[in-house]
Parts: sequence; structure tokens; C-alpha cells
Amino acid sequence: MAIYVASRRLSARTTAATLRYATALRSYSTSFREERDTFGPIQVPSDKLWGAQTQRSLQNFEIGGERERMPEPIVRAFGVLKKCAAKVNMEYGLDPTIGKAIMQAAQEVAEGKLNDHFPLVVWQTGSGTQSNMNANEVIANRAAEILGRKRGEKCVHPNDHVNRSQSSNDTFPTVMHIAAATEINSRLIPSLKTLHTTLDSKSFEFKDIVKIGRTHTQDATPLTLGQEFGGYATQVKYGLNRVTCTLPRLYQLAQGGTAIAAAVAEETNLPFVTAENKFEALAAHDACVETSGSLNTIATSLMKIANDIRFLGSGPRCGLGELVLPENEPGSSIMPGKVNPTQCEALTMVCAQVMGNHVAVTVGGSNGHFELNVFKPVIASALLHSVRLIADASASFEKNCVRGIEANRERISKLLHEKIGYDNAAAVAKKAHKEGSTLKEAALKLGVLTSEEFDTLVVPEKMIGPSD
Amino acid sequence: MAIYVASRRLSARTTAATLRYATALRSYSTSFREERDTFGPIQVPSDKLWGAQTQRSLQNFEIGGERERMPEPIVRAFGVLKKCAAKVNMEYGLDPTIGKAIMQAAQEVAEGKLNDHFPLVVWQTGSGTQSNMNANEVIANRAAEILGRKRGEKCVHPNDHVNRSQSSNDTFPTVMHIAAATEINSRLIPSLKTLHTTLDSKSFEFKDIVKIGRTHTQDATPLTLGQEFGGYATQVKYGLNRVTCTLPRLYQLAQGGTAIAAAVAEETNLPFVTAENKFEALAAHDACVETSGSLNTIATSLMKIANDIRFLGSGPRCGLGELVLPENEPGSSIMPGKVNPTQCEALTMVCAQVMGNHVAVTVGGSNGHFELNVFKPVIASALLHSVRLIADASASFEKNCVRGIEANRERISKLLHEKIGYDNAAAVAKKAHKEGSTLKEAALKLGVLTSEEFDTLVVPEKMIGPSD
Amino acid sequence: MAIYVASRRLSARTTAATLRYATALRSYSTSFREERDTFGPIQVPSDKLWGAQTQRSLQNFEIGGERERMPEPIVRAFGVLKKCAAKVNMEYGLDPTIGKAIMQAAQEVAEGKLNDHFPLVVWQTGSGTQSNMNANEVIANRAAEILGRKRGEKCVHPNDHVNRSQSSNDTFPTVMHIAAATEINSRLIPSLKTLHTTLDSKSFEFKDIVKIGRTHTQDATPLTLGQEFGGYATQVKYGLNRVTCTLPRLYQLAQGGTAIAAAVAEETNLPFVTAENKFEALAAHDACVETSGSLNTIATSLMKIANDIRFLGSGPRCGLGELVLPENEPGSSIMPGKVNPTQCEALTMVCAQVMGNHVAVTVGGSNGHFELNVFKPVIASALLHSVRLIADASASFEKNCVRGIEANRERISKLLHEKIGYDNAAAVAKKAHKEGSTLKEAALKLGVLTSEEFDTLVVPEKMIGPSD
Amino acid sequence: MAIYVASRRLSARTTAATLRYATALRSYSTSFREERDTFGPIQVPSDKLWGAQTQRSLQNFEIGGERERMPEPIVRAFGVLKKCAAKVNMEYGLDPTIGKAIMQAAQEVAEGKLNDHFPLVVWQTGSGTQSNMNANEVIANRAAEILGRKRGEKCVHPNDHVNRSQSSNDTFPTVMHIAAATEINSRLIPSLKTLHTTLDSKSFEFKDIVKIGRTHTQDATPLTLGQEFGGYATQVKYGLNRVTCTLPRLYQLAQGGTAIAAAVAEETNLPFVTAENKFEALAAHDACVETSGSLNTIATSLMKIANDIRFLGSGPRCGLGELVLPENEPGSSIMPGKVNPTQCEALTMVCAQVMGNHVAVTVGGSNGHFELNVFKPVIASALLHSVRLIADASASFEKNCVRGIEANRERISKLLHEKIGYDNAAAVAKKAHKEGSTLKEAALKLGVLTSEEFDTLVVPEKMIGPSD
Repeated sequence: MAIYVASRRLSARTTAATLRYATALRSYSTSFREERDTFGPIQVPSDKLWGAQTQRSLQNFEIGGERERMPEPIVRAFGVLKKCAAKVNMEYGLDPTIGKAIMQAAQEVAEGKLNDHFPLVVWQTGSGTQSNMNANEVIANRAAEILGRKRGEKCVHPNDHVNRSQSSNDTFPTVMHIAAATEINSRLIPSLKTLHTTLDSKSFEFKDIVKIGRTHTQDATPLTLGQEFGGYATQVKYGLNRVTCTLPRLYQLAQGGTAIAAAVAEETNLPFVTAENKFEALAAHDACVETSGSLNTIATSLMKIANDIRFLGSGPRCGLGELVLPENEPGSSIMPGKVNPTQCEALTMVCAQVMGNHVAVTVGGSNGHFELNVFKPVIASALLHSVRLIADASASFEKNCVRGIEANRERISKLLHEKIGYDNAAAVAKKAHKEGSTLKEAALKLGVLTSEEFDTLVVPEKMIGPSD
Repeated sequence: MAIYVASRRLSARTTAATLRYATALRSYSTSFREERDTFGPIQVPSDKLWGAQTQRSLQNFEIGGERERMPEPIVRAFGVLKKCAAKVNMEYGLDPTIGKAIMQAAQEVAEGKLNDHFPLVVWQTGSGTQSNMNANEVIANRAAEILGRKRGEKCVHPNDHVNRSQSSNDTFPTVMHIAAATEINSRLIPSLKTLHTTLDSKSFEFKDIVKIGRTHTQDATPLTLGQEFGGYATQVKYGLNRVTCTLPRLYQLAQGGTAIAAAVAEETNLPFVTAENKFEALAAHDACVETSGSLNTIATSLMKIANDIRFLGSGPRCGLGELVLPENEPGSSIMPGKVNPTQCEALTMVCAQVMGNHVAVTVGGSNGHFELNVFKPVIASALLHSVRLIADASASFEKNCVRGIEANRERISKLLHEKIGYDNAAAVAKKAHKEGSTLKEAALKLGVLTSEEFDTLVVPEKMIGPSD
Repeated sequence: MAIYVASRRLSARTTAATLRYATALRSYSTSFREERDTFGPIQVPSDKLWGAQTQRSLQNFEIGGERERMPEPIVRAFGVLKKCAAKVNMEYGLDPTIGKAIMQAAQEVAEGKLNDHFPLVVWQTGSGTQSNMNANEVIANRAAEILGRKRGEKCVHPNDHVNRSQSSNDTFPTVMHIAAATEINSRLIPSLKTLHTTLDSKSFEFKDIVKIGRTHTQDATPLTLGQEFGGYATQVKYGLNRVTCTLPRLYQLAQGGTAIAAAVAEETNLPFVTAENKFEALAAHDACVETSGSLNTIATSLMKIANDIRFLGSGPRCGLGELVLPENEPGSSIMPGKVNPTQCEALTMVCAQVMGNHVAVTVGGSNGHFELNVFKPVIASALLHSVRLIADASASFEKNCVRGIEANRERISKLLHEKIGYDNAAAVAKKAHKEGSTLKEAALKLGVLTSEEFDTLVVPEKMIGPSD
Repeated sequence: MAIYVASRRLSARTTAATLRYATALRSYSTSFREERDTFGPIQVPSDKLWGAQTQRSLQNFEIGGERERMPEPIVRAFGVLKKCAAKVNMEYGLDPTIGKAIMQAAQEVAEGKLNDHFPLVVWQTGSGTQSNMNANEVIANRAAEILGRKRGEKCVHPNDHVNRSQSSNDTFPTVMHIAAATEINSRLIPSLKTLHTTLDSKSFEFKDIVKIGRTHTQDATPLTLGQEFGGYATQVKYGLNRVTCTLPRLYQLAQGGTAIAAAVAEETNLPFVTAENKFEALAAHDACVETSGSLNTIATSLMKIANDIRFLGSGPRCGLGELVLPENEPGSSIMPGKVNPTQCEALTMVCAQVMGNHVAVTVGGSNGHFELNVFKPVIASALLHSVRLIADASASFEKNCVRGIEANRERISKLLHEKIGYDNAAAVAKKAHKEGSTLKEAALKLGVLTSEEFDTLVVPEKMIGPSD
């Protein structure tokens, strides 16, 4: 028995390959049911809710394996969109029995309960419409079950009922924006806010610790450790501003009709609106490129902060050693007291990936043609990847590193006062004593220090600031 | 009861959070066993083979979720390395009973059978040594089981037996190279070779089809469709050369000792050697940056090829329409005959991601410090991601698109001959008839065409080439 | 005679090389004067206003040649800053005679009149302070001349007078922001506004031209040419929003003291303020990374627009041919009527460079350490390069391409109506005639078109929109 | 009088603008001559050798100003190509009088003597053919002068004589390869070789200096300073291998005909051949992307090396202080003894730009369409920029930094021995004395050190190597 029959000209897939695939499928599914689309019938695993078009995409795009599945926030956003569409459609004539079942099924998708039924990978049609069909098919079959009917019967129809009033090309760009805006608000912004708060409180905690400054990696004018952390806190605060600045354009949904956008806004509690210009919303994804750019800037900031913290914590004896970082795991068996700055390392690796993802988003965003940019899934995937990575890594960094950072006051003080130099100090003291002059006068006469240096270095707590 | 007791200063993790985590773990594991490292005891799910250090990393790096687990080729390469190390260690005194059990357990890791026991994410310590400990712990516990002993007993010890003779810092860079070289040889090169063969045979198939050339996207000197596909085939052929050129440096393993490298070479059938300079091999990953650069060039080639093919196949009526691409899935419900070039889209999206990953690898590669680059996991992950994506997408593109491409000879011919222009042709013919001159003479006299144009355009099959 | 005598340990520069350099200098300068800094005396060309420190940098950084000189907007911004500093300094005790001369000299720098006296390349100290000394030295010597004194006399002192009240480390980040904000306001925004206006007026001009849409590069639902151009106009409009969003952070100057920032604001008529956090302003350049990110997004938009326009103008006979682009230069000698879309090409090349520059800015921005980011000159240079390129290329594109674009109405109409198909049209008409039915009824019965298709395609002007 | 008369439809350039342009031209040229192309007559500055098509491009692409002129190596490569073409053409019938004059004029171009006559910017037609016409026009006019004729007379014709036998589309990709291969061989490889030699000799010089190692920026197993520099030297050596690996594909010239390629090979003493596949050579620039990728890897290496050196030289008192870098310029006025690592800064800035340029080259390389990639000038410009910057910055870094690096043996020794700790050392010594045991036994009993640590740390010179 043929696994699927294509009614049109097929790609040059051999029957052998098809059978192999079916065998592979059977190895993890006990049985199949037949689903059907305009292309003909096709075997779908019985325990899965998806239908013919999903199955076909699954077979046509064997790229990257399960890890490359469409990101979960996209799947959930489809749930949100389909629920809202059903709600609006009921006001415009959709049978309420069907409508309510769709809403319930879509809610399950929105909650991530049906993730196993979204097998399609990112590397599919560039419009992402196969994932839209995946959502339609799963919701239709699940709604049918809710209504006591069987999968595949199409008593709830993927196109006529679930996709109703939505142009296929509009749905994916819509869920891109819903997913990104939701992840940014629920995951990224809280993580960055917590990181900012902790850096800010460290800045306060360390406000009286005067330390040597370093410019060009060389010893420079003293400042307080609090000022250093204040710089980091400011970077994170501005990062929050930066990503927030991009949201107004992300809140614009490609989906036509103000009713659906309003329903999505109500459902998500975020100020989504229907896009001002629908042509721009399908043909370009500049809003995603822009948001990715803000993440790129945040990655730049975090790379700097994490690098500083690991260098300031370097040692314990042969590095700078000004900070003591929390020890979260066993260090070296050979080197006792070695605390590797692993949280800094995880964070800076994330930053490298975010910078890379930004280039992927940029290349995808710049290669749209005519009425439709067909790099939608890679743009969505790379952007959401970056959001998740920065959010989680910032949270981990805050919890497992920044929060527990302590200043090594003794070391800081030792380094700072070494700057003056003991021999010089001795000579100055002797001269001052002998001549009855002040220390400063003696230092100036000996040419050991200039007046400015004296004020800076001898009583470094006096003058601190961001200067050479 | 405390879930784990840290013997040193902990990060500022609250007890509440720890309990929440333990509860979360319990929700998917029925029971726990206690494992222990120098940091103290810690609860590990009973059904998992990993030990204390893995568990600690798992809790300290909650970044990105399960999708972000260390790539499978890395896990498998750990299996290869540990098997080879045990083999060599037995020659240097490792108890053969333990050695054989380790080899068997490592073989299971190499075959991917124990993937579920490698839960650590990419975003961990920058040396990747937590994944090394994961491998040591899993293999030790599995070897103990093979010997009829219990997990956690450490009758086979993760450090003393499994990690024996390997400096922890050497193992991860070693598996990076094993994994990348293996994936390139087993996955990437075969896919590209098949794609090259198919493009080459298309070039032969289309060698007599003269068509209009296009430079600056504008009509230009005719060439054959075979020549166009020959250009594509050449690009892929050079791509194979490019990635092959980088392999000698990837075959150098950071692991000290020629014996292990020799064993890995035998096990993998690839010419691995021990690195010429071990300091370079730990402190930098230029070989990975270089290989990623070759993938970036291949992505550049594939982007060009896939773009051309989708534009040449655009239409069916209002585009160029010179190629007919295979139809693999239902197209538009509104537009009959519309065959979306979805394989081109998947491939070009992959290319965008590969270009992005290359930047991630570059940033990671350039940020090493002193004796150890600590961006190893992101470099490995991004590189392997690119290898897999190009390999799979090239295979899918070959199978589901290139192999089935047909030339639309009628359309090609129509476009080609339109270049001359019917009015001009008529005028020339009339003049030639009237004056008894050749067509060419008439054309030149009328100034309709230059001599060169005449030769080029009137009998375009005569002169074809890559010129304006 | 030694050309310069270093009082401290020198780099391993041979005397021979020094002599060669001096000889080279002599080849274009008739004479030299001796200038002096703490390092000792050094020969400076007599006809140049710069001093010892500039000369030393010139010899130590022979990288890239004259093209790599610090960008002119940086030089001019130094003029602005030094003028403003002198003005404020006079209020705090600077001798008004000297102060006024400095202001006059600085004004000449601000006007670009002394560009030839700024020979230093971008690839110098990472703090950019050598360019600050260049500015101090040139202004001091020029001010001396204004006061009737000689160069090199230091009656106006580079440090004590010109650099007065400015910490050296503050000046370069200050001029980075002055230069970038000025260029964006005076050059980029006007160009983009003009481009937006022209695209918008084209959108209006073409509002009634119904044409085939293209999704996945395939024929799709019709829309108007005006809608296509409206999409482009919207992209540019949002681009203006994007860059404008980043300005508040660019208006923050690293220079301490509100008085100087206020003076710069008055001088430039832009709302500069002194930076909220000076530590952040020296240690990081996130504001520049952010602004570069907005340019990257604009490049993404422009790449899309220019690509569309060249494809829509492709042909004249064998492409899409819907647009006729202005012909600005002779085309092919072989192919009459071939108008190469050279403005699109220049613009898309610029976009590629801007995307690259953005990576340079990101890498530079992420690699700061401690109190000072020392990638300042490359960040400034790449950012200003991008601003200038987008501004100029947008202006050229607008003036030499967009403004003159005409619709090829005949071709557009022909393509659009081909979609229905003549055979089908004939069959439908015959059936309708025979059966006395409407065309739509006949089409539906014959299965040639669905109802939706009929409405869409037969009277395409009826339904236009951004859908599949 | 009209400045130029366009015979076809012009872009919407206003007459006012044209007049303004002419006025601007007049401001720096005393007079004009009229040149003419198929577009009509146009005014050209009398003192310039270029002709009508160059002038038109100059006016149509006012992008970026003079700094954006086509890179000099491209101009020189045009000289080489045109000289070789004339030589070959004389064998095929070109009048020897004209041929020799062309060869002489072309030689002047190849020597850079006529640089001022190549005003066109990178941002022009994407095929670079306007620069080809610039070369043709300049050489034709100069050859005419050599023959005692006047500019503009076309007794030597730009197309018929100078461009003879060269398809316009072939010339630019040919000079791209000539220029890049020449610059790499004459500039980059020598600089990198010198840098390698110096690093290698430093490795030898420092081979006995044992120092603390650093992994994760933390204290780690000792190694020698020579081993550290040996790692750097190996990186540079492999970099030379990497760029050399790409040359075979760069030696392929797009220019048809083996005779010209052979002449170019003879002229340049480099093994140029005619490209295996001309279609690939015009439609793609993968060879340039590949070469740029090797530069990107080299930039990664150099960034690592320069970062290490500046951190190892950080201090003088509050940093690592293990290296003393040459002092090339006055440091801080406030901080005596502060030697800023400015050469490291210049080099790392160059690396950032090279990474960015690589993205520009990649984006350009991936966006070719059909028979011609039209991102040629940006690809050439960014690639040559990177070659020049790495070459010059490596040379400057070698000469002004690496060559003069000295080890601070005292500091290195102090840090190394601090690892043991004075208190511990005292306790161990006391115990050993009291108990008559060895130091090692005492240390083990006290639990101060493990046996391994003892061997490692107490006599660190004993065990050195790249391990944790």
C-alpha cells in the first residue's frame, strides 16, 4: 500500500525513500490514520493531532532534527491568535459550538499543552504558512475531539473554521510579533530589571570603596567600586530603554482588522494594534531587525560587564583580585581557591550568539522580495533565541554571580596605595620632616609627584572620577 | 532535609529557591539518589546516570531550556574519546575489567544511546569541562552497572578511571574537533557531493538550451541553461575544496599524547593527530573559525544558487518562468498553478543563519584570554549547527528541488527571440528582400543592429558566453 | 643630526628607518621646525600646524595611508568643542586675548579650513587622545599666529590653554557624539526625508495602477503599484523614527560640566546635555552601537526597496519590466535599450558595507575594559562612514533613480491579464454564451476558477490587498 | 550654454543643480574641454585625462566624497591588465604604434603615477565597469599625448584600442583578483612573516622564564613565557597557511583567453591563470569571500594576541605587569610610568574593522543574481581594505611593540611564588623542621597542598604545560 499518493508532479523522491520514511515513522507510532489535502491522501501517526499538510512539510523538510522545531513561543502565539480569531468570528457568524471548541483547543495550544503536535522545523516555507496549517490542523482535530468527534473527519475544518477570516500570509508575521513582544515583556524585561536592581544595589553597597581606576588596562585615576558598578547599572538601564523603544513597532500586527488585534491585546494585556501599512508588514520585517538590534546593543553591554567582573575577580593571587565571586561548583582539583567565573563565561557566550543571530536576522530581513519576505521563520527563530538567551543568562548571572559578589577590600586597598610607591613616600616624608614643610610641598620639590598627582594619589579618596 | 549542602561560600541562592527546584525535579522523577562531590552531597534523579557535578551545573545554568543542550555530535565525540582513552589507559595499567566496562559504556555514548543522560546546556562553563564531567559521570555509572554495581558507588570513578590521563581542559577542545570533523565528513561532504553531481548532470541535460542571459538583472548576451547550471556546479565543487582545505587543522587534537590521537584516528577512520602546539590548541580556536569561514563561503554560494533558481522559476505567468520547479505540497488555494519555491526558501534561510553563526564563532574565537579560550561551547555549538544545517538543507534542496527541475523550453525560447523585436525583424526582412542583400547587411544598413548584435541575437545559438 | 631624541626607552626602531622617514618627509616639505614634548624634540614640517605629539603618532602608526585619516566630522567636532571650551574657560579665568584667539582658530577647524593639519589615522591610540592632542596643537599654533606669534613657541599652550578644563579622556567620546549627532541631523535625516517624500509621491502617482502581486516570487493577488511604493515609503518613514529614537542617548556628552554641553548645544543648535553617568560614557559606547543598529535596520529597508525596484525594472523584454528607470549613463553597446539599475546597485552596495560596519562597531563596543573603552576611533569611524554612505546614497538614489521612475502601464496591464489565461477565458465565454449564464457561473461550472478567484482575477481592480 | 546634453530621457536632475555642479567644478579647474559619448557631450576638466563616461559617473554618484575613491590597488591592477592586453593585442593585429603607447600609459597607471585621474568612487555601477571606462579613457588620452596628440581626440580609442578584446564585464573581476593577490603577496604575507619571526624569536628569548598560567582568567598551572609566545607564533604561522590556501582560487582570472592571463602572470610574477569556469567567475565572487574569511580568522588570532599582550603588560603596579611594552609616545601626565598599549589598541581596532568588512563581503557575495554579481566594487574595496589594514597594523605592531617587549622577570617570579602563600610556606617549614620530615611530607600532612600541587607549585619550573 502506498503511504501517500501525490496527485501532481512529485519531486524526484524514490518510493524506496518513502517506504523507509514510513518505516521510520512506524518505529515510534503504533498506527496511522489517513489524512488528505488537495495533493492527495497521506499517512499521519494516529496519536498526533496534525493533518496532511503538516505531515507533508515534515517529510519535505528533514532539516536539523527535532531541535530545530519552530520555537515554542511561536506555537503558543498561534494559540493566542486562533483563539482570538474564533472569538471575533463568532460575532460574524461562526457557529458558536464550533467556535467555542476552537477557542478551547486554541487555549490549550496557547498554554503549551499541545507542543508535541507541532513537529515542523524552522527550515520550511519562508512564509511560515506550513506552521499556520499545523496550528489549523491541530486545533481543528482537537476541537473535533472536544466535540466528541474523530480526528481527520474535518467536522471542524482547518481552513474554513480555524483559519477563517485570516489570510494565510498574515498569520505568521502576526504570531512573530505576538511571540516576540510577549517574550520580551514576560521574560527579558523582568530579567534585565532584576539585574539592574542588583547592580544598582551593589553600586550603593560599594560606594565608599576607593580603588585604582584602569584606562588602557593601565593604572589610572582612582574611583569607587560603587562608581564602577554604577556604570554597569546604567548600561543595563539604558538597555531596557533601548528595547522598550522598539516595542511600538512590534505591537503592530500584520493581521488585518482591528477586531482581532483588539482581542489579542485583551488576551495578552499588551497594546497590540493592527499595522498601519499591511504591505510593509508582510514584505519586510524591519521591526524584528530593529528589535534584534536592541538585543545586540544589550549583548554589547553585558559582554563588557561580564568581562570586567571576571577580570576584577581574577586571581586569586596572580590576577587583579579586587572582587570575590561566588563559588557555585567545584573548581580546579589542582588549584585550591580557584573560582572560575563560569557565570561570566556563560553570559559572554550568550552575547556572542546574540551578535551572530543579529546578523542572521539582518540578512534575512534584507532579502525580502516584492509582497512577501520569505525569511520569516529564521527571523522569528533567531530573534526569539536571542530574547530567551539574554533573559535566562541575565537571570542566571544575577542570581548566581552578581548578587553574591563581594569586594576584597584588603586587596583593593593594597593595590591603590601601591601606586604611590614606598621609596618615594619615604623620601618625601624625610624631606618634609627635615625642612619642616608639608608633605605636598616636599613631594613637589622632589619632583616625585605633581600637585595634581599628590591630591589624586596621596589621598585618593579625595578625588575620584572618570578621568585619566 | 536539605537538598544539597555546600561546603563553601554559596551564591546568594535562597533556600526557598532550592526547595522549589527540588520540587520541580520531583515532579518528573519518582525518586532521587544522593551523589557527592567536593562541594558536598546533592540529589540526582534516580533514573539518570549523571552525578553530582552534572547536577550542579544543571541547577546553576538554567539557560534556554532543553533545546540548548550540548549538541549530540559533542556527546558522541565524548564517547569516542573516552573509549579510546580507556583503551590506551589499559596499556598503561588501568585495570582491564574496569577499562573494558568503560569502553563498553563509552561505546554506548558514541552511539547516541545515552543522550538522555547529557542534560547540560551549551551555556555553562566556557571551557566545556562540565560536559566532560557529565561524560565521566555517565560513563562511570554505566560502567558500574555493566559490572553489576550500583550508580553513585564510584567503583568506577569518574575522575580516576574515566578521565584518567586526560587533563580536563584538553578534552573539550578535543571533542570539538572530533565532532566537527566527523560531521563534516559523514554529513556535509556527502550532501554537497550529491548536490554537485545533480547540478552537474542538470548542466549536461540543459546544455543545448540557449536562453537569454541577464546582467544587472537586465537582458544580456545569450548563454545556455547548461552553462548557468555549470556555474552553480562549479560553485559547489569549489565549496567542497574550501571546506576540505580547512580539515588538516581540524584534525589536530588538543589531547596530549600521540597514543590517544592514534586511537581516535583508528576509531573514526579520520586522520587525527595530536596538535603540534598544545598551547595554541587550548588558547585559541582559530581552526574552528577557519572552518566556519568555509561554511560561510558555501552559504554565500548556496544563497546565490537558490536565489537564481527561484527567480528563474518565478511566475508561472508574470515572472521569468524559465524553470519549472517540482511541486511538493499544495500551493495557493487562490492561485492555481502557483508552485512556491519552498526548498529555495528553506535553503536561503539556512544560509542566513550560517552567516550569523559565523559571526558568533568569530566573536567567540577572538575573545580568548591567556591559556584558555572560554567560548568553547558556543564555538562548538554554532559551528556544528552550521554544518548540520547546510548538510541537511543541501540534501533536501537536491532531493526535493534540483533533481526535479525542468526547463520550460517554450518560455525560454519565447523570451530569447523577443529580444530581436518583431517590427525590426519585419523591416530587415523586407529590405533584404527588396535589395537582394543578406539579412545581416540589411540589418546593418537599417541601423537596427550592429554586426556584433546581429551575430549575437539573430542566431543566438551561435555566440554564447559570459559577456555583456 | 638626530631627527628626534627619545628620552626614555624606545621601541626597537632602527636609526636607519628614522632617517628614511625624515627623508621621506623632506621630499614633500621644504623645511622642518623642531617641536618638543615630554619625550624630547622632534622635527615637524614647517608648513604644518601640528606639534610634537601629533608628529610622533604619525610616525608610530603608519597604518592604511591617507585614506584612513580620522573622519572630517570628528575634526570639525573638535573645533566645535574647543571653541566652546575656550568660551566657558574665559568665564573662569582664561586670558581673554588667548581665549578669543583659540575661539577663532577653533572656528576655522570647525569649518574644515584646517583639515590638512589633521594627518592622524583612525588606527592610533584606542582612546583617540592623539587626535585630541592634534586638535590642541593645531589650535594652539594657529591661535599663536592669530596673535602674531610663531608656531611652536607655545605662547598659546596646547594643554594649559586649549585643553584647559577638559580631561583628555573625555574629549574624544564627546566629539564622537557631537560628530555623529551632527551628521545624522544635517545629512542623514534630510536625505531620508527627501527619499520618503519622493516615494510617497510616487505612491500617490501610481495609486490607480493595478498590477500583479508577487509572493514567494510567484504570481499572487493583485495590488496597486501605489501600494507597493507605499510600503517602501513606510519603511523609510519608520527608519527615520528608528534613528531618531536613538538620539537622546547620543545627545549625552562625556565631557563633564553642564556649561560646556550647554555651549555645544547653542553652537550646534542640537540638544546636547552632559552625560548622566560619566563612567558609562567613557567605559562603553552603547549609544553608538545602538545608533549603528538603527542604520543597520535602515540598510535592511533600503536593500529591500532597491532590490525590488531593480527587479521590477528588469528587462527590457525578458524580465518583469513593470517599471522604467531613468537612464543616467550609456548602457550596453551590444544591447540597445538596456538600462542598468546602477543607482540600485550603488545603494545596495552601501547597505552591505553598513551591515559590515555595524559588526565592526559591535565588536569594538563589546571589547571595552574597566574605565575606558579603547575602540573609540574605529567605532567613530565606522559609524560616521555608515551615516555618510546612507545619507549620500539615499540622496543619489532619490535624485537619479526614484524621482524619475515611470510605470510601464502597458506591460503591467499585460502581465496582470495574462493571469486569467486566454484558453480558459475563451472556454468560459463560449459556455456562458451557450448556456445564457453569467461569466462567473460558467467559470465556476467549468472549474476553471473558484468564485474567489473569479472576483480576484477577472476584475482584479476590485480586490487588491496584501494577501496570498 | 548647457554643460551636457543628454540625448535620452534623463533622470529628474534639475538644470539648476547641473549648473551648480559645473560651477563647483570650475572652482577647482581653470578650464574644461568637451568630451562625448553615446549620451552626448559633457564638460571635463582640462587638466584631467578622463573622458565622458568617467565624468558622467562622477556626477551621478556623489557618494562619500574623495575618501571613497576606488582603492589604489584596483587602479594599478587596471594598469597591469591594460598593458598586458595591449601586448597580446599587438600579436593579433593592434597597430604597434598605438599598442606601445597604450603599454607605456598603462605602465604609468600601474605605477600609481596617474592616480589623480581616477576620481570614481566605489559606490557606482555594481559591475565596476565605470572604473574600467575610467581606465580606458585615461590610458587612451595619455597614450594620445605620448603620441603627440591631444586629449579627447580619440586617436587612441578607449573602447576600440584600450578595451580591445576585453569584454567589459570581465575586466573588473579580473582586476579584483590581480589587486587582491598582489596586495596579499607584496604586503600582507611579508608583514605576517615578520610578525611570526619576531614572535618566534621572543618565544626563544623567553623560553626559560617560568610564570603562572591563567585559565578562566584564574591562576593555573605554570608554563613558560616562551610557551605563551610560541602559541602566538603558531597562530600567526597558521594564519599564513590559511590565506595561502585561498590563493589558488584567487589566481583564476575572469578574463577570457589564456594569453592575457599568461601575460599578467609574467608581469606580476604570480601564477595567474584564466578561470576554469567563466560563468562562475562573473556571477559569483566566492573566492573573495573565502579570502576575506581567511583574513577574518587572522583578525581573530591577532585580537587574541594583542589582548593578551596588553593584559600581561597591564599595570605598572595594579595590573599583571609581567611584560614591559615599549614606550613610543608620552603617556599620562598624571600617571608617571603609565605606558599605554597603543599598538595593541590600533591592532585590535583593525581586527574589529576586518570582521565587519568580512560581513560586508559576505552580504555582497551572496546577493549576486544570474550572470553577474553586481556588488563587485564593495567586495573589492572591503577585501582590499582588510588586507591593507592587517598588513600595516601587523607591521606597526611588530616594529613598535612586539620587537621591544621585555619580560618583567622580577614581577613574574613574585607572582609565581605567591601562589604558595607565605603563611602556608612558614607553617610547612616549621612542621618539617620540627618533625624532621621533608617539606613535601609536611605540606601533605598539614593539608596545605596535595602531592600534585606540591610538585606543581613549590618547584613550578618542574612541571609546566597547558593544563588546568
